[in-house]
Amino acid sequence: MQKQHTNMNYTIRQMTDTEAIIIRYGEIALKGKNRINFENKLLDNIERIAKARPKRTSGRFILYIDAKDMQKTAEKLKKVFGITSLSIAKEVDLDMDKIGSEALERAKGRRFRTFRITAQRTQKRLKPSPDIEREIGAYIVEKTGKKVKLKDPDLEIFIEISEHAYVFTEKMQCHGGLPVGIEGNVALIIEEKNKKELDKSILAGLLMMKRGCNIYPFRYSSMKASMKKSANDKKSLKLLEDYGAKTIVIAKDINEIQTKALKMQCRALAIGNTIGNLSGPHKEIETDMVILTPLISYNEKEISEKLKGFR
Amino acid sequence: MQKQHTNMNYTIRQMTDTEAIIIRYGEIALKGKNRINFENKLLDNIERIAKARPKRTSGRFILYIDAKDMQKTAEKLKKVFGITSLSIAKEVDLDMDKIGSEALERAKGRRFRTFRITAQRTQKRLKPSPDIEREIGAYIVEKTGKKVKLKDPDLEIFIEISEHAYVFTEKMQCHGGLPVGIEGNVALIIEEKNKKELDKSILAGLLMMKRGCNIYPFRYSSMKASMKKSANDKKSLKLLEDYGAKTIVIAKDINEIQTKALKMQCRALAIGNTIGNLSGPHKEIETDMVILTPLISYNEKEISEKLKGFR
Repeated sequence: MQKQHTNMNYTIRQMTDTEAIIIRYGEIALKGKNRINFENKLLDNIERIAKARPKRTSGRFILYIDAKDMQKTAEKLKKVFGITSLSIAKEVDLDMDKIGSEALERAKGRRFRTFRITAQRTQKRLKPSPDIEREIGAYIVEKTGKKVKLKDPDLEIFIEISEHAYVFTEKMQCHGGLPVGIEGNVALIIEEKNKKELDKSILAGLLMMKRGCNIYPFRYSSMKASMKKSANDKKSLKLLEDYGAKTIVIAKDINEIQTKALKMQCRALAIGNTIGNLSGPHKEIETDMVILTPLISYNEKEISEKLKGFR
Repeated sequence: MQKQHTNMNYTIRQMTDTEAIIIRYGEIALKGKNRINFENKLLDNIERIAKARPKRTSGRFILYIDAKDMQKTAEKLKKVFGITSLSIAKEVDLDMDKIGSEALERAKGRRFRTFRITAQRTQKRLKPSPDIEREIGAYIVEKTGKKVKLKDPDLEIFIEISEHAYVFTEKMQCHGGLPVGIEGNVALIIEEKNKKELDKSILAGLLMMKRGCNIYPFRYSSMKASMKKSANDKKSLKLLEDYGAKTIVIAKDINEIQTKALKMQCRALAIGNTIGNLSGPHKEIETDMVILTPLISYNEKEISEKLKGFR
């Protein structure tokens, strides 16, 4: 009876508090109009995934969604190019007592012997970051009896200050890059002769998306008929979609690809060839389109490592 | 008087000993005929730089040159693609006493408090590596009074065993990749509108060379006339040459480049465009040759870091 009561209290508490995902982004050297385009496109791409449009704050986006969808949405957002890192945070008022009790709440759910508080202000409010760190740190020590350790602590509690205070314990690293769609449309030929060639096509598409291109993938109809896709192949193809590629289009030959690609306003055609297989498929492609070879200077090991990084 | 005497002895000793450069190479997954082509091309490329042909031993090359040229030649060899690392070593007989006294000699010239012996056998001779390490280690401790420390020692003395024993203290990391010339000829357009574009062309050339291509760089004659090269630009252009590119050819337009490139049996044309400047120079190039875009998925930061790595 006692236990059930506690659980209910906790549920109510969670629902009245504000949870949010902090979204960090940015490429060095993006300035002026480029930066605005970057931000708008990234907001669009996030909205499509999260079904909610984040709020802008100083150099960050804050996304408010149902608490139950937080983890799942964060996992999906990891595949949105342009985002450099994510944190699921509690949003509280700019008030040291509230920040302290939220930090304590975060600490209580965790097993640790040592901890540190890391504060950052994206707006100059409340008080200097070192003061916040010291005061909240002292409060946690007092309440838990744990030790502060600045280097390699078991637990790091982050406090970010802008219009509100955000308290969290994890920064999920993402891929960065440019938001898909900022650099125009590129057709991608999916080569399916074998697993290796397929993986190269997929990686070529991902790399172009990471540089902001919309990717329109094309498959040859002959390939489709003659090949049984393994679960692995399907997983590879799904990767492209997860990162925001358009639906795969079937075409019977390069002429049909070119016609369809031009209709989709593709400015170029990407292929996954390396220098080793340059005399292969590349030679067969006769097209007026600009051909892009993002993997041309990669070796096998680099290709498989890069692709693993995106899975 | 005493000092001069010692110096003289030392000089004589150095000249009667055999110094050699150990050259390590190899890409994972090179097998059969590919491996033999790789080795022969690499031997050719080394011979051209070092004016001496290395000897093959188990998975290594051993290069014998004048002791006075060692350091300078090693620096030059760092720019030979295909080499993964280099060591300037003393070659001694497969005899524990001789190895021990050579290791001691190496230690004497150095200031250190802790050391370790790291032995490796590319041929199963003499005795197991752990035994070599323990015995030579004990000998150095006895003679110098220094301490063995396996993790992060001040000094590491390496012993490699094949047909002879090689004793050395440094492994110079090199770029690896494939030997220039193993993958056929590629023309490179050197874009000189500004420093950034120039650097991109240079990097595109270097990356293609690292994948084994012979690079034939082309400059537009109009550019040459209208531009004063800074010292920096000259240094960039020299990089291409240092890594084994052919002499730069001047041409007045893309037609002349194509004609000359085909005469040089170039199978493709590399350009340093990124997706951001794709609508720039790339569009102006109308050619029947295959165009390679090794930098198409790189951002500015990656480009400048990569290029720095080659300097």
